[in-house]
Amino acid sequence: MASMEQRLAALESELRAVRDRLDIYQLTAAYGPAVDAGDSKTVSELWTVDGEYDWGRGKAAAPGQGMVQGTAGGAKSRAEIADMVDGSFHRGLINAGAAHILSLPHVLVQGDTAVSTCYSCLFRHEGDGFRAFRVTSSHFHWVRGPDGWKVKRRLNRLLDGSAEARALLATGLAGKLPD
Amino acid sequence: MASMEQRLAALESELRAVRDRLDIYQLTAAYGPAVDAGDSKTVSELWTVDGEYDWGRGKAAAPGQGMVQGTAGGAKSRAEIADMVDGSFHRGLINAGAAHILSLPHVLVQGDTAVSTCYSCLFRHEGDGFRAFRVTSSHFHWVRGPDGWKVKRRLNRLLDGSAEARALLATGLAGKLPD
Amino acid sequence: MASMEQRLAALESELRAVRDRLDIYQLTAAYGPAVDAGDSKTVSELWTVDGEYDWGRGKAAAPGQGMVQGTAGGAKSRAEIADMVDGSFHRGLINAGAAHILSLPHVLVQGDTAVSTCYSCLFRHEGDGFRAFRVTSSHFHWVRGPDGWKVKRRLNRLLDGSAEARALLATGLAGKLPD
Repeated sequence: MASMEQRLAALESELRAVRDRLDIYQLTAAYGPAVDAGDSKTVSELWTVDGEYDWGRGKAAAPGQGMVQGTAGGAKSRAEIADMVDGSFHRGLINAGAAHILSLPHVLVQGDTAVSTCYSCLFRHEGDGFRAFRVTSSHFHWVRGPDGWKVKRRLNRLLDGSAEARALLATGLAGKLPD
Repeated sequence: MASMEQRLAALESELRAVRDRLDIYQLTAAYGPAVDAGDSKTVSELWTVDGEYDWGRGKAAAPGQGMVQGTAGGAKSRAEIADMVDGSFHRGLINAGAAHILSLPHVLVQGDTAVSTCYSCLFRHEGDGFRAFRVTSSHFHWVRGPDGWKVKRRLNRLLDGSAEARALLATGLAGKLPD
Repeated sequence: MASMEQRLAALESELRAVRDRLDIYQLTAAYGPAVDAGDSKTVSELWTVDGEYDWGRGKAAAPGQGMVQGTAGGAKSRAEIADMVDGSFHRGLINAGAAHILSLPHVLVQGDTAVSTCYSCLFRHEGDGFRAFRVTSSHFHWVRGPDGWKVKRRLNRLLDGSAEARALLATGLAGKLPD
């Protein structure tokens, strides 16, 4: 039978795992509200200083402009992520009415790294309702640092039938990193 | 090194925080199914007796009718919230096919109060599919009482580009209350 | 005042409840990515060997074909669930661009069984955006076995105004099983 010491140690270890999961839920739930509020500081600080956000086809970073429709693109640092949020494309999007809704993520933690998988759905206000403008598979690679969990790399892929978008979901569920 | 007593106390405190988070997830996940089932008792009892639900522009409480499209409105007690659910506008909505889907909330607990932030997406059945009729930012102010967590005030703001809807997201992420 | 033994036992029991909830969240979050990746093994193994998936009106199992639009249908075993995922209807769906997004579930655990309630939203890629093709109420009956929680029966009902779809939400919130 387990000693009190062993039972305490087991509880501490299991509770740490629970808190890791909830921490990643919380950060995932923060992304949409921060980006739709146009809060580039809060958005960018979800990432590590050198974190990457590859948002795939349909948007691209352009100097001083944030994003342009039609080409693949991404950001390679906190500063570039903040630029995207502050850029004219994103500002135009939220000023016209937008919601970036991330779904409940599947989360696999291994030590100080984690992989989570969810959907991101971007609704835009149109006429008297909203349109699902982009629905993507979203893969997060997390690392634990002195300030808790941060995104090292996030990839979105438009679920337009592409094999890559489907493969990204399988990669995430397996706890693996994409190329 | 921490004593067994200290370790137990730390575990108890941390587990309480985890359970608060999960309690608020559970209540958030109950709202949609209860309101789409037309269960006015279950919906209204998510709030405190004098709880408020300000659902913003686009719907308004009218005596004996629940909600009318086109004007701002809300409910200022459990009884008024139940009236909204039992009213002809809401009954018409769910009888024609509706889903009120709340996203995974961002939750900040401070003692016996909490603030959560999420999106609410109202889908209506139209033709051979569904239309996102309303997508709102949703801010919950919770209080802990003898029956657990209850909503003291909930605000929805249509994400149609209004500065107020965007600000509500930032207010919630900061754990603050709106005016 | 509680003894250390009593406090340890209370913590262990409460943490088990937390982990049950998170386990069911995790399995719920796995369904969409697995089915949209076309991974029939991962999807089907969310169920017990003899588990049932009744997806309701609008899709039906047909031998060698998976699903056909227009009639009610379902699968009565892991093998039949895998057939649905591997079938031509589902393959066509994901090859054209699809996302099966499940919402944060309401979860009630009682011993080794559990009931969860959520929405399932099927988006299809159309034109330059996505359309919410199906929005359903989704009821899960879970059982705990040697490999953890598995779905014994899942029912979806299209939220097109039908009383049955609304009743399914109420049934789930009450922790009950449908007929």
